[in-house]
Amino acid sequence: MLVNGLPGNTISIRDRGLLYGDGVFRTLRAVRGSALHWSLHYLKLQHDCAKLDISCPDEALLLAELEQVLAQHPDGVVKLIVTRGEGVRGYAPATDVKPTRIWDFSPPPDYPAEWATQGIKAHVCQIRLPAQPRLACVKHLNRLENVLAAAELRDAQVHDRDIAEGLLLDAEGHVIEGTRSNFFAMSQGHLVTPDLSHCGVAGIQRGRVMAWALQHGLALQVRNIGLEEALHADELFVVNSVIGLWPIRALGQRHWSHFPVAEKIRTALEQEEV
Amino acid sequence: MLVNGLPGNTISIRDRGLLYGDGVFRTLRAVRGSALHWSLHYLKLQHDCAKLDISCPDEALLLAELEQVLAQHPDGVVKLIVTRGEGVRGYAPATDVKPTRIWDFSPPPDYPAEWATQGIKAHVCQIRLPAQPRLACVKHLNRLENVLAAAELRDAQVHDRDIAEGLLLDAEGHVIEGTRSNFFAMSQGHLVTPDLSHCGVAGIQRGRVMAWALQHGLALQVRNIGLEEALHADELFVVNSVIGLWPIRALGQRHWSHFPVAEKIRTALEQEEV
Repeated sequence: MLVNGLPGNTISIRDRGLLYGDGVFRTLRAVRGSALHWSLHYLKLQHDCAKLDISCPDEALLLAELEQVLAQHPDGVVKLIVTRGEGVRGYAPATDVKPTRIWDFSPPPDYPAEWATQGIKAHVCQIRLPAQPRLACVKHLNRLENVLAAAELRDAQVHDRDIAEGLLLDAEGHVIEGTRSNFFAMSQGHLVTPDLSHCGVAGIQRGRVMAWALQHGLALQVRNIGLEEALHADELFVVNSVIGLWPIRALGQRHWSHFPVAEKIRTALEQEEV
Repeated sequence: MLVNGLPGNTISIRDRGLLYGDGVFRTLRAVRGSALHWSLHYLKLQHDCAKLDISCPDEALLLAELEQVLAQHPDGVVKLIVTRGEGVRGYAPATDVKPTRIWDFSPPPDYPAEWATQGIKAHVCQIRLPAQPRLACVKHLNRLENVLAAAELRDAQVHDRDIAEGLLLDAEGHVIEGTRSNFFAMSQGHLVTPDLSHCGVAGIQRGRVMAWALQHGLALQVRNIGLEEALHADELFVVNSVIGLWPIRALGQRHWSHFPVAEKIRTALEQEEV
């Protein structure tokens, strides 16, 4: 673990990441000493820092630190947190504050392999995502809604151990994302992914799926998608950098057993074709 | 500074307070070795922990720690953070996790004394508070909206150094609170404070003002109040545990010079009559 370039696993109790969730993060998949899609992650980090007016650390500095992490932990999940840094008392961010860089690592997840091929059960969470255009798309450290949703999911799993992801709706009932993933539907001949201009996190795996669709002439729509439309879609799937792509085989009373488009995209993602 | 009862000023980078803002906090005013309104703060802490399903530390334990803090720092601002604790990777809260207790201190604020007697200028912030009934009222660590609002306030202060607080509206244009305070209006013969069932933080100083109104037969309403109504109110004021009570003497084009009700309440608050 590295904090500001030095081995360590603590931060100051005055770090604004703790005090206010004033920071952003990335979750990367490391395979054989390499962090997959680093460039996409760094672009996203720059974008997210800019939205919060946090000065994004230089790529060279982060790459040097990432190399240290990967040397010790070549396979697994690497987490990078960038906070606004330490501050004096009060919400207002000082302009001369130096961002804090935190690297952490965890072992590769042990999800059942058939979740990627045969699909998962998904659960609709009760908690709704509120509209906040100023923070939409950004993967910031204010994640209480994900925590509450994950707690719901954990409770649902007590009754049905097959449930693997929860879907989050906005206040109007549009499907926005999974608790830790982005959401896609094959609906009415289009690949549809939710409009995230009011809430949700735009992950880099979502960007890769969108890029693939554009490259392969698959009609792509970024728009609102209600739960009813999702339940009538030809295919549903969720993606993120750690799980890859999971088709949804069950949601509410609806079941799916064929995922031809999801399967094609999953293969392309895994073979690094995009 | 104390972390889990021991002198220290760091926490683990795996603490969920940092990772997700998964925790709550209290800001107390310490005067001559005593933390004002501790019992109200502890009740609020219990309530906020319950809303997040965090197991609230025992009062006796916290009081023993508070005593240590006050012995070293008898006058100023004491901050208590309770996070859900350290976790394994993922949003879902483990059920057996032990909350983290963090105490910090800062010197007494040096606000101009006339802000309490002659009032402040307030600024209407652009950023809106979204509706999230599951988190409304709770003083949790997801405070990016306050950070963005405080940044707006700081920018407004460059043009007008007299501005001392920013008001936050919800998406429908109701005044909800200040960036770091609760809001009251004397309007149409009633003392009105915003309904916080969808957003905002219900502070203990707000509770004291409400208790005073009930004790003194001042008609109190907890309801939505639009910016237009606020601009036409007889008096406006903001409160919190550190500033006490500040009347608002200027908001937009409107100016006030007499604050008879605010003055009476401020005196009562200061004299600990409630």
